[in-house]
Amino acid sequence: MSGNTFGTLFAVTNFGESHGPAIGCVIDGCPPGLELSEADIQPDLDRRRPGTSRHVTQRQEEDKVEILSGVYEGQTTGTPICLLIRNTDQRSKDYSEIAQTFRPGHADYTYLHKYGLRDPRGGGRSSARLTAPMVAAGAVAKKWLARRHGMAFRGCMQQVGEIAIPFESWDHVPNNPFFAPVADVSQLEAYMDQLRKAGDSCGARIRVTATNVPVGLGEPLFDKLDADIAWAMMGLNAVKGVEIGAGFQSVVQRGTTHGDSLTPQGFATNNAGGVLGGISTGQDLEVSIAIKPTSSIISPRDTINTKGEATQVVTKGRHDPCVGIRATPIAEALLALVVMDHVLRHRAQNADVQPALPPIAASFL
Amino acid sequence: MSGNTFGTLFAVTNFGESHGPAIGCVIDGCPPGLELSEADIQPDLDRRRPGTSRHVTQRQEEDKVEILSGVYEGQTTGTPICLLIRNTDQRSKDYSEIAQTFRPGHADYTYLHKYGLRDPRGGGRSSARLTAPMVAAGAVAKKWLARRHGMAFRGCMQQVGEIAIPFESWDHVPNNPFFAPVADVSQLEAYMDQLRKAGDSCGARIRVTATNVPVGLGEPLFDKLDADIAWAMMGLNAVKGVEIGAGFQSVVQRGTTHGDSLTPQGFATNNAGGVLGGISTGQDLEVSIAIKPTSSIISPRDTINTKGEATQVVTKGRHDPCVGIRATPIAEALLALVVMDHVLRHRAQNADVQPALPPIAASFL
Amino acid sequence: MSGNTFGTLFAVTNFGESHGPAIGCVIDGCPPGLELSEADIQPDLDRRRPGTSRHVTQRQEEDKVEILSGVYEGQTTGTPICLLIRNTDQRSKDYSEIAQTFRPGHADYTYLHKYGLRDPRGGGRSSARLTAPMVAAGAVAKKWLARRHGMAFRGCMQQVGEIAIPFESWDHVPNNPFFAPVADVSQLEAYMDQLRKAGDSCGARIRVTATNVPVGLGEPLFDKLDADIAWAMMGLNAVKGVEIGAGFQSVVQRGTTHGDSLTPQGFATNNAGGVLGGISTGQDLEVSIAIKPTSSIISPRDTINTKGEATQVVTKGRHDPCVGIRATPIAEALLALVVMDHVLRHRAQNADVQPALPPIAASFL
Amino acid sequence: MSGNTFGTLFAVTNFGESHGPAIGCVIDGCPPGLELSEADIQPDLDRRRPGTSRHVTQRQEEDKVEILSGVYEGQTTGTPICLLIRNTDQRSKDYSEIAQTFRPGHADYTYLHKYGLRDPRGGGRSSARLTAPMVAAGAVAKKWLARRHGMAFRGCMQQVGEIAIPFESWDHVPNNPFFAPVADVSQLEAYMDQLRKAGDSCGARIRVTATNVPVGLGEPLFDKLDADIAWAMMGLNAVKGVEIGAGFQSVVQRGTTHGDSLTPQGFATNNAGGVLGGISTGQDLEVSIAIKPTSSIISPRDTINTKGEATQVVTKGRHDPCVGIRATPIAEALLALVVMDHVLRHRAQNADVQPALPPIAASFL
Repeated sequence: MSGNTFGTLFAVTNFGESHGPAIGCVIDGCPPGLELSEADIQPDLDRRRPGTSRHVTQRQEEDKVEILSGVYEGQTTGTPICLLIRNTDQRSKDYSEIAQTFRPGHADYTYLHKYGLRDPRGGGRSSARLTAPMVAAGAVAKKWLARRHGMAFRGCMQQVGEIAIPFESWDHVPNNPFFAPVADVSQLEAYMDQLRKAGDSCGARIRVTATNVPVGLGEPLFDKLDADIAWAMMGLNAVKGVEIGAGFQSVVQRGTTHGDSLTPQGFATNNAGGVLGGISTGQDLEVSIAIKPTSSIISPRDTINTKGEATQVVTKGRHDPCVGIRATPIAEALLALVVMDHVLRHRAQNADVQPALPPIAASFL
Repeated sequence: MSGNTFGTLFAVTNFGESHGPAIGCVIDGCPPGLELSEADIQPDLDRRRPGTSRHVTQRQEEDKVEILSGVYEGQTTGTPICLLIRNTDQRSKDYSEIAQTFRPGHADYTYLHKYGLRDPRGGGRSSARLTAPMVAAGAVAKKWLARRHGMAFRGCMQQVGEIAIPFESWDHVPNNPFFAPVADVSQLEAYMDQLRKAGDSCGARIRVTATNVPVGLGEPLFDKLDADIAWAMMGLNAVKGVEIGAGFQSVVQRGTTHGDSLTPQGFATNNAGGVLGGISTGQDLEVSIAIKPTSSIISPRDTINTKGEATQVVTKGRHDPCVGIRATPIAEALLALVVMDHVLRHRAQNADVQPALPPIAASFL
Repeated sequence: MSGNTFGTLFAVTNFGESHGPAIGCVIDGCPPGLELSEADIQPDLDRRRPGTSRHVTQRQEEDKVEILSGVYEGQTTGTPICLLIRNTDQRSKDYSEIAQTFRPGHADYTYLHKYGLRDPRGGGRSSARLTAPMVAAGAVAKKWLARRHGMAFRGCMQQVGEIAIPFESWDHVPNNPFFAPVADVSQLEAYMDQLRKAGDSCGARIRVTATNVPVGLGEPLFDKLDADIAWAMMGLNAVKGVEIGAGFQSVVQRGTTHGDSLTPQGFATNNAGGVLGGISTGQDLEVSIAIKPTSSIISPRDTINTKGEATQVVTKGRHDPCVGIRATPIAEALLALVVMDHVLRHRAQNADVQPALPPIAASFL
Repeated sequence: MSGNTFGTLFAVTNFGESHGPAIGCVIDGCPPGLELSEADIQPDLDRRRPGTSRHVTQRQEEDKVEILSGVYEGQTTGTPICLLIRNTDQRSKDYSEIAQTFRPGHADYTYLHKYGLRDPRGGGRSSARLTAPMVAAGAVAKKWLARRHGMAFRGCMQQVGEIAIPFESWDHVPNNPFFAPVADVSQLEAYMDQLRKAGDSCGARIRVTATNVPVGLGEPLFDKLDADIAWAMMGLNAVKGVEIGAGFQSVVQRGTTHGDSLTPQGFATNNAGGVLGGISTGQDLEVSIAIKPTSSIISPRDTINTKGEATQVVTKGRHDPCVGIRATPIAEALLALVVMDHVLRHRAQNADVQPALPPIAASFL
């Protein structure tokens, strides 16, 4: 209720602050019998980890995950899985200066008003560092969904600032620091270098997909699959917009083109982005998100202090010049967590359902 | 859990089908002591009602609301408020033909797979008719928020198909059937007439805002105010995209421009759309949504039937050529319901908070 | 959150007041494909109905249930089922006198403090009349559990005031107005007649059971099956105590006798009442509840009025001299609702579980 | 949903197993600004700790709590508080023998059927060791309720096996290992010594109370204060019965005696146990619970193994001969957690309520 639990039947409760002793989460509702160890989780954490290229924050964090509960002899037991990540590189002195001012674009102002006090070290609870436990939890969901339903989750960069990135192949994504689906990222590198020198930051646009989606996921009125995806994505730090399928392009489409035709071999197109009436069609889920430019920049900004007086603020510390870069594995994890929850929700009510016809585009749950 | 309840502390449980005997909702958690009668609710229902111009469905529904509980001697008692709307104009024969086929862009296919059976009359549960109880519940929330916090909620049309609509004034919105903030809607009327003659439909883009927003609403990690708004909006029938503040425009913004400066007199800009770190800043909430073109069109579409065979379908019946037109009052209601829930959530945890400084742009909760 | 929803996956939201226009509930999460009509629900409502013998309140209510949604062509569709019961016999004048005083043992005092106002007519929301929608919802759960798992729910009277009632046979229960499992109820009738003449009331003790319980229902730490049963039963009007299995008798038992031995043919005893570690064993669920004497009595009682002044109150109106008498079908319904919810919860997480051995005393879920 | 979270607005998510690396919990929803350190929590943990007298298990656990998040410069921040307790004395070899058999009265059988596998070490997740994090969370709730509302929570032993314990004074409770409110516990000591020699165990009856309870706590229909207390208490390991106020004694009471008279100076009696219509009256909450005899005893018991064959089992290891003894601080903590949650729930909806008259027996919320 206080906003630190994600999901209902596969419920992930997140805790920790950027510069506290540890961050982590508790997964409640994981089905029993899944083979699980830290080795299943660490790779996704490593993909999200800071300090891996010159285009992201230079904070050094191992992000080493420890499973504290819920696994016995290498298998999940159906009881809560606590995942712990110790913070190691906390340079709290970097933040002492900004404790009395509000950084534009940051949660400093709103936290102080909501709670009457705030932890200023590294953004405290509002830090994007708190996405690490979600990536860890997402890795558990991904593994179960892969084993049980053959699903896969992928994400890539679509645009960095003004630079639109064409889709060449998923194969390129792991080979560059931008998660870009192109072979040559030299233009992106130059752009980022220039931005960093200018002491500025830029936005980004990310695409995330899921394949082998069972038909029938999503509740029809409010907890629609696309609604829950929008909730998850808009809840990711710095996201300002979410699209499913054709998204804002559908404003200028006609009904005769937008509605995806059905054929005995499958849907002819995917303007729906894999969701009709809030329920998965079995097609790929297609999601696109807009990420705002990093607010922590070294260029001086006008602001006020906690006494309400006008002042200026410069954010030193170590920050991502484009927070969108590291967002790809996080967005994948969030999509996996939403789907995981809906698989469990679906079978609670509909485990006995025998549909009249087989799905045309994907295996039925 | 099965997706028919909206909100947590101001929880609205929706029931009914397009052509069943009645639709309605139960509001649980309304604070006691609010003066309330049907007259507070009916005006918003009338704004959303079908059959009011030639540009929307010609179905005739009075949409007369009845308060069945939770009000005693004209005041809410703090117990559940059941709002009932009887269906009157159900022409179920219109739908007999399509019970065996799946309309492209519709939930027919997904419902059958999810539940193994479906109510085909008017889309059954997936009909946009089920937004009427939400408009009714939203009217209750709006009244309480107006009385307690002086808040107001407004929406208007931004774009119909290819036609972008400039913002002239809120005053024009009630004076035309499009909720358009312009004096002259003749171009829109001609566009819609042409579309209807062509047997086609188009998308739309809507803007919704809230003013006098208390600072501090929204949970910081997952039930962020903007995340819950995105959930509510993407859950509205036919919505494919949601933006907060600068939205997708923030992709091409720089950090030096996007982050809204603070001054002793208030925020200098509102790229944030009134939300920082998931928590309201006190500025106006600014939301924009993309609505896909109506799927029910009389132009024939390729599809399959429930035996999996290729066929064509023509949707007769009475449908909106642009479902976006009637979406404005619904989107306002949903925004009010999200805010209402967060006001109650906020004060559960933070009722005792005394912030160090007064908010710069709005009254504190 | 405001306490009007029972259950999570089979969630029943209750609304209405004793003397408002109607009472009812919305069931969200009922699996699709269950044959359902009013005729499945009415018999249980009739068992609970007032005015059926001289030993219960003489209020005349038909308690005619109407299904407003969620059923199409005689089958549940998986969408919310709204059940409506119109109030017909509201003699509100009976209550005008007591609007300014607090009846001892009643919720008058607590409602006024909680909400600042209250509906005094027939107890408003605190009336036991609000159990009728739960009996109706319970009938739906009972039918599904009978069809899917062969389960049955039964209750009987164990004690009325000082008169303990031996268990002779379930067959006697429907043949007397006390739900007593004995052939001869003349002693009970004389006792109740005497009590009514004295203007007093008495308590009661009820037993409720479930048979053919699947093994494995119940969450292990907090939403234990027995904990949820205790919650449901203690939440029933006038209940002051709940026991599972041996109950308070277990205080004086030894470990060597209390722990039920297992044999290849089944458990040797049932001190556990069908629950170990919060999870069903497959044995019958055995629950016992204590119900306090009716607070609405015609004998004058010392109290205060809403100005805080000492006064006396006499409760006229039409009241049950022993509210426990009509509690039996209600307690059955509540037990069915708890089990129904846990069946759905169980299969969400554990639908794929293949246990090493077959259950010894009941069919596995 | 999977039963590891206690509460809604003050939500405690529990994790860990008896012999895993650690146990703990995450508290979500704690109001900000509460001074908090490990020193506030440790004393209650020490009261519950094993190995403190010869009458309880000899397992040696320091139960040292560590605050991992949610506290900054000695104050709660309103964000999740993670409390971690490392397990130190895990003698897993003790349990190797029983991995293939089901101990009568234990959760071994039900866990295997529910999940298809189980952690047999010390009962795994079903161990009473998992009450330690609840005691820790309860200490946080107690401190806030004491500061904000002047509340206090106390518990004592009422009966051990056949030995009823008269109430002499709360002062004696901390001075003996039984939490008995009597000066002389020699009879209890002799009784327990004899039981231990006999290789047997016994039940117990505990009383728990709360004082300075605000009027108006509890939801009226389902999440009644007494219902939630019953849920919490019945969910405590080994509890088989719960009473509020007069409890089962109310079966033989008359309406003329049970209903507590109101006077300008307060309620004349407290048969209600502090709750009317599910809502607190401002009187002390009075709760009584029955705890079954320990199931882990060294006397041989008939049972079956995981192949379904008849066998016998002897539970060695280190176990409490009367689990009721250490239950007192746990029951206090659970009562505090229920009350804490309801204080927050109450003010969400009713923060603006101005009741007509001041409460007669307690300060209003």
